[in-house]
Amino acid sequence: MPNRPGSPTPPPPRRRLGVEQYVEGVLARDRGVLARVITLIESRRPDDRETARRVLDALVPHSGRSIRLGITGVPGAGKSTLIEAMGMNLLDAGRRVAVLAIDPSSRLTGGSILGDKTRMPRLSTRDDAYIRPSPTGSTLGGVAGHTREAMIACEAAGFDVVIVETVGVGQSETTVADMVDTFLAVLIAGAGDELQGIKRGLVEMVDLLAINKADGENRRPVERAVAQYRNAIRLLHPPESPWIPPVLPCSAREGSGLDALWEQVLAHRQALERAGLLSEKRRSQAVRWMWDLVDDSVRRMLREGPGLRDLAEGLEARVRDGELTASTAADRLLSALGL
Amino acid sequence: MPNRPGSPTPPPPRRRLGVEQYVEGVLARDRGVLARVITLIESRRPDDRETARRVLDALVPHSGRSIRLGITGVPGAGKSTLIEAMGMNLLDAGRRVAVLAIDPSSRLTGGSILGDKTRMPRLSTRDDAYIRPSPTGSTLGGVAGHTREAMIACEAAGFDVVIVETVGVGQSETTVADMVDTFLAVLIAGAGDELQGIKRGLVEMVDLLAINKADGENRRPVERAVAQYRNAIRLLHPPESPWIPPVLPCSAREGSGLDALWEQVLAHRQALERAGLLSEKRRSQAVRWMWDLVDDSVRRMLREGPGLRDLAEGLEARVRDGELTASTAADRLLSALGL
Repeated sequence: MPNRPGSPTPPPPRRRLGVEQYVEGVLARDRGVLARVITLIESRRPDDRETARRVLDALVPHSGRSIRLGITGVPGAGKSTLIEAMGMNLLDAGRRVAVLAIDPSSRLTGGSILGDKTRMPRLSTRDDAYIRPSPTGSTLGGVAGHTREAMIACEAAGFDVVIVETVGVGQSETTVADMVDTFLAVLIAGAGDELQGIKRGLVEMVDLLAINKADGENRRPVERAVAQYRNAIRLLHPPESPWIPPVLPCSAREGSGLDALWEQVLAHRQALERAGLLSEKRRSQAVRWMWDLVDDSVRRMLREGPGLRDLAEGLEARVRDGELTASTAADRLLSALGL
Repeated sequence: MPNRPGSPTPPPPRRRLGVEQYVEGVLARDRGVLARVITLIESRRPDDRETARRVLDALVPHSGRSIRLGITGVPGAGKSTLIEAMGMNLLDAGRRVAVLAIDPSSRLTGGSILGDKTRMPRLSTRDDAYIRPSPTGSTLGGVAGHTREAMIACEAAGFDVVIVETVGVGQSETTVADMVDTFLAVLIAGAGDELQGIKRGLVEMVDLLAINKADGENRRPVERAVAQYRNAIRLLHPPESPWIPPVLPCSAREGSGLDALWEQVLAHRQALERAGLLSEKRRSQAVRWMWDLVDDSVRRMLREGPGLRDLAEGLEARVRDGELTASTAADRLLSALGL
């Protein structure tokens, strides 16, 4: 999937390998080759994309054997500290951990705030961990696609926990929720008695809530927040639900509450498996993603194709101003594509 | 937009009029002509669709001057009784009320449970009210498209309140929320102390909650439910939100609480207007709808087109089984369309 025109071209890989070499390198857990495969995935050169596709098609059968955990939270909620601390615990337990990031704000800043390896100084020096910044300058659809494919590559390279991190902006949370098994929101208690407002739609999407920074004087506010969120969650989930999202206090800085949090990640997974829903969830996610990619490509052709772009913008403006029905406009767009 | 192949053809209009006659009839508030225009909108005959399109393009500039209210709730929550009672109050206040229904279950039953006029016996005999059953046998996308277009026709025919009713099934609530100004959920209190579980995602979508059947011995459970939902809602909306959805008790059967409910519909509208969001909301809805129609048509071509259908099903199965990446499959689908 090409990036938007005008976005910076990623640096070319030093020397291109053949499809078999990439595949073998990844399966042999060669981190250098893994990194180059992900660079191919993110490339907007058609030949790179073609290579990436063939590599991925060969890797797909070796993927899927990880715990896929999504983590969201506003900036300042302590996500990196939490991922670093939880990740180190997992490494100690013999897990291999990959951290991928989806950062929609990188389109604005031109650089990724999430991908900065210095945010996770201990994790980033370990051979059994792999941290990958999100590519910059792409559409969210593009970034999300790259992240999904990077997840496949990481799994094929033997990482058995893949953490996909995002900040709570716009569509990115829905996107991440739709590529992981378990979705965790990291929240903090507000100052004083006030709960920090939680983004509309988020509670409905998460499988697990952590109220972070339960340390020092902040312990009591966190306890109150935990109780309030538990009440809210109970109201939103019928008692017969297969899973009622737990709300847990933790302190990523002090390392407390993280084992309990991980236990709930595993418990959620077991609940899905027991209900026969885990593989079905992944299958539906993959199929939905295929159709979303079709939509995304068609829309991109219409928004960016020479000749089509002006037509699309003009029709959009007329629909926006109530001069034309959406269905007349949609038909004209389809005709312009020859459909 | 053609319906699915195999769905029953609606009865043909008695005698076809010219585009001008349809337009003039609707603008003259001729209910018979309005009904026939909506039948054209629902028709899957290409010539009818072409006429409908031209009529709608002429009506669009005369639309948009109504209060668009969406109402959802599980079967048994008392939606029809509520719409009938609230609708009669509105007629008494000099309003003209149209009720449209989106009923995804009609695809299964082959008949509309919502469109039955006998559910609203008083409203259905009034000249200043118009009740339209949802068409049967269409995809949700098709039904929703027809309902949006029917809304335009009703507004052009001088109805200044358009109520779009749906049952809480699958995508239908999102679809309705995205075509109205204000979205109301009608809930009931559970037996005893238990709250009836509310569907995941719904609370995040609604602007207003009514707990119905606050009558007789049910008053106390409803009061408790109101208090609990108010708490939950407060947690889900930051205090600085332009609108915190109110939770109100009512009894559609006794007619109590309905004025207060309508006042909140108007208050929500005013809050949107004050924040400059009402017209922006409608504009964004229209543009989103245009793009959704493009997606919908492309997907329908792939799922139903001769030759394409087998390809799409085969690719979908391979993606589902983890044999192929979603992006390879998506590219093959696009190639098959010549894109």
